[in-house]
Order: sequence, then structure tokens, then C-alpha cells
Amino acid sequence: MDPFVVHILGCGSALPTLKHNPSCQVVEIRGKMFMLDCGEGAQTALRRSKISFQRIRAIFISHLHGDHCFGLIGFISTLGLLDRTAPLHIYAPAEMKPLLDLQLQMFFRPPSFEVVFHAVDTTKQEIIYEDHSLTVTTIPLEHRIPCCGYLLKEKPTLPHIRPDMLEFYKIPFSQVGNIKNGADWVTDEGERIANERLVRPADAPRSYAYCSDTRYVPTLHERIKNVSLLYHESTYDEANLDRAERYFHSTGAQAATVARDAEAHQLLLGHYSARYSDEGPILEEAQKIFPNTILSQEGMAVDVKN
Amino acid sequence: MDPFVVHILGCGSALPTLKHNPSCQVVEIRGKMFMLDCGEGAQTALRRSKISFQRIRAIFISHLHGDHCFGLIGFISTLGLLDRTAPLHIYAPAEMKPLLDLQLQMFFRPPSFEVVFHAVDTTKQEIIYEDHSLTVTTIPLEHRIPCCGYLLKEKPTLPHIRPDMLEFYKIPFSQVGNIKNGADWVTDEGERIANERLVRPADAPRSYAYCSDTRYVPTLHERIKNVSLLYHESTYDEANLDRAERYFHSTGAQAATVARDAEAHQLLLGHYSARYSDEGPILEEAQKIFPNTILSQEGMAVDVKN
Repeated sequence: MDPFVVHILGCGSALPTLKHNPSCQVVEIRGKMFMLDCGEGAQTALRRSKISFQRIRAIFISHLHGDHCFGLIGFISTLGLLDRTAPLHIYAPAEMKPLLDLQLQMFFRPPSFEVVFHAVDTTKQEIIYEDHSLTVTTIPLEHRIPCCGYLLKEKPTLPHIRPDMLEFYKIPFSQVGNIKNGADWVTDEGERIANERLVRPADAPRSYAYCSDTRYVPTLHERIKNVSLLYHESTYDEANLDRAERYFHSTGAQAATVARDAEAHQLLLGHYSARYSDEGPILEEAQKIFPNTILSQEGMAVDVKN
Repeated sequence: MDPFVVHILGCGSALPTLKHNPSCQVVEIRGKMFMLDCGEGAQTALRRSKISFQRIRAIFISHLHGDHCFGLIGFISTLGLLDRTAPLHIYAPAEMKPLLDLQLQMFFRPPSFEVVFHAVDTTKQEIIYEDHSLTVTTIPLEHRIPCCGYLLKEKPTLPHIRPDMLEFYKIPFSQVGNIKNGADWVTDEGERIANERLVRPADAPRSYAYCSDTRYVPTLHERIKNVSLLYHESTYDEANLDRAERYFHSTGAQAATVARDAEAHQLLLGHYSARYSDEGPILEEAQKIFPNTILSQEGMAVDVKN
């Protein structure tokens, strides 16, 4: 199966610490690389990860708090120094455009490549990116300012051909495409072999939901039903529920509740408040509600699996 | 003597590496802290240095290349999160103001403290900051865009009183101020003791010149004559002199030539190109011309001495 991997470049929150970087992830899916949020220092974290800068096709920004976007202009500048030629697509709330335009004009002239800005409507769930193998859909979230998550989902693939059947019925290789697309096979003797005997079912499409930052939204699970991997912010533990509510953030238990209700396959926590030197308690409270939960940490590469 | 220390937070150049941060220094002088340039990640480097964020009074930006200013808005945002109340002064080329205004409006509302912008004229050598104990003067440099360095200089202090003389002549403590300011002393017997017998000369004022980024300027030494410590960029070694000329940067040998001609007491190199895994050759070529040369490295604290 094609790799579908989430690389954690930063999973801290706004106050800088020596333990965590601010939010940034790179998702590798069907041979393409997409960045999710771009906090300050993202380019250094990317260098540390050994992911090629040039492979990033698009960056999706969840909202305009500094810990989610202050690294963007530095990353774009560096791509310029590296003589990128391929366009770079930025998806972000519309309010980012005037800032990005001014920064590009000041720091990025003459440009060696095009920066294409796409304003996203954070209040709607809609497909904002689509190619032959995947879609990216916005996930409305509830934060102090307009904010949305992003759902990256593989498109269904064709079923797997059964090599043993190809050999048994002496089916020429030229027919594989037709059979994958549903054709039966008729032998020289006129016997019709039903398609379902010739193939194994396709892999179920995998999906990754990135939900940062948000207060607990009781209906969020409906938008990400059966997601393979859910990243849901868990800035606080339950002892700081009042802070979570005041600042429109979530606790580990709330993240786990969303994962459970969504029937997600796995939950990834992150966006930890600087107050925690150890995120163990956040993990423990989440695992009580949703056992298949892990903590994100810088440098981790998480496989997205069904 | 009061500490006068240069803390190196970043001494790399534009391309990010895992070895160096982009340009940022904090100068401690007469109990005050000033930041020089503020590349991306400056706030993380500052946290690592254990210098209090709140002690920074002003930031001096040499020019508007990203590796010298992309960390500014992140640092200001964090000061807001830390509930700073004292004003923060920013000295930078005028072109920075529209960007800073837009960033403050987007990311820093409501502000808990005032950010006061001072446009500097990079083409003139003039005092832009003065208080009772020091001055900061611009140093015109020659780079691809308007750029200036900064000269931080102590004001002359009063001479030191000689405790042995105080005791010998039984001079009351209340007279120390007058004597430091030049008064003679007349004994009960009417003998006049000349002031110069009662004091030791004041320490010579110390000074620090921060010169980044610039091509070699043959007359630069005239502006920083007898400086105690000179930081002069040395992006390249002599083998890459053509690159230095093309990009308006300097070699280690050129930095040392400026230090020698200025009769500086010590030279500090930095702003190394990402191409060097070892800056030894840059240091060696500089030391041939100006022996008292050292390499800056992140985490260093350099005493400014005469």
C-alpha cells in the first residue's frame, strides 16, 4: 500500500518552549506532500525531518494565530533561495491574503515561482482540493477566531487482481485493466468467469482529520465519521477544563470523546499547553475514553491505517 | 565594572541549517538589554539563553532580509502572552512599518503594551538612542538593500575614588560625589590636595559595533575607530570572494581588515554561509590579518573589554 504518513514537526501551543515547536505537520499521501499549519521554525523542523522542501505542494493553514502561521514567510523565502520553480498553493482564511501579499512583495522579489493563494471558508465543510487520488475537505471548528480543520482522504482505488486466477485462466496481461474496472472474463471454451472471482476487494480508502484549534464540539464527530486517524488538539487536561473553555481549546478527554463518537480508528493528541512538562496525564484521561490514543511528539511519523 | 556582554542567539545566514540560527544577538549593557536583529526562532533561542524576555527594552533591525527580522512578530506576540506592560521600541528601516502595523493589527489585539516604531536612516551615522549611560549610533553599511549596523557605546563614567586617600585625609563620605566630579580637597590645616591625587582615572568607555550584512567597505573603519569589540559579518572565506562580491557580503579576511584598520580590540565573526560545516578556514584567514579574532557560536556570551 502507498505510504500515508503524518510527520509531526511541531505539537506545542503558543508559548515557546524548548520541548515543543509550534504547530506544523507534513502529510505524505499517494506520493504527494502537504503541510498542515506552519508555526515559527517550521523550516528548521522540516530540515531536521529530512523531508525535501521541494516536495511540499500545498500548505493548509487552520487559522491566523501566530503559532500556526508565523513560519510561512520564512519557509516560502527559503524555497525561493532553493530556486523552486513549481507553484506553491496556500489554503488559508481570507484574512491572510493582504499580509501574504505584503510579505511577498517585501521579501520575495523577483519570485522564482508562483505562490497561489486560496481563501477557505472556515464555516463550511467543502472539498477545497481534489486530484485523481485524494480530496481535502474543510472541517469547521470553533475557536476564538475563524478556524477550520482539514480532512485528507484517499479516493477509492480499484480492486486487486488475483495473480493465481490470471495464471489459471491464462488471461493476458492486457486485460488486467478491464478486469480491475469490473469486466468478467470469457474463456476460449465460452465459460464466463464472474469478475468477483478474479479480484480481491480494493483497500478501504484511508483518511486523516487534522483538528486544531477548537473547543469541544459535540457534533464534530459527524463530519469525520470513521476517519482512520484523527488529530484533535488537547491543549489541557481535565484539571484545566475551565482554561480550555475560556480559551476555546479542548482537553484530552474531550478529544477522545470526539474520536469515540466518530468511531475513528486512532487518535493523535497535540497542541499541548506550555504548562505541561509531561503530557502523560492528558494521554491517560484520553485513553480511558478512547484506548487507541497516542501522543504526538516532534520527529514522529505516524502511519495512517484502517 | 558593569557587565557589557554580547549574547549570540544566532549567527547563521539565510538558508536554514541545523547548526546555526539566523541572526540575533542580545547586548547587556549598563543593566539594560537590547536585541540586535531578530531572525526566525529568536524567541526559542532567547528561551534557551535563559535571558528574561521582559528585560529586552528595544530591538534594532539592520535590514529587511528575512533572516534578520522574521522572528520579530513571534517575539512581540509572546511578550503579549507574557502580559508585558513596558513599551517595546523597534528601530528599523522605515519600510518595515507597514508590515509591522499590519501584523500588530492582525495578531496583537488588544495590545497589553505599546510597540513604538522608530524609522532609522541607514545612510547616515547618527545617534538614534541615548540615555544617561549609553548611546546607540547607526553605521551605514553597503548591502543589496538599505542596511545599517549599530554602535553601542558607554558614556564616559566618573573617575574612581581612592579609598586610601579618603582614609588618609579623613575626607567625609559626603564629599565623594564632589571629588569624583573634579573637586580638590582642602584639609583642616588649609592644605589643598589636588583632585588627581584623590582619584584613579575612569574606565575607558567600552563600545560594541554590530556590522551585518555588508560588503567590504574600505572606509568603514573610520566610523568605528578604536571600538572595543567589532562584530563584522564573514559570510564567506576568500575562496568564495566572488560570491561575497556578488551578494554584497564579506569574507573573514575582509572583516579582519576592517578590524585592523579600525584598531578594534577584538573581532567577532558570524553570519556564516550554510555551505560551511566548519568555519575554521574563515577564522584562520581572519587571524592572519587580525589575530584577536573569534568565531561567534550560538550560546556564546562575549565580554566587551578594552
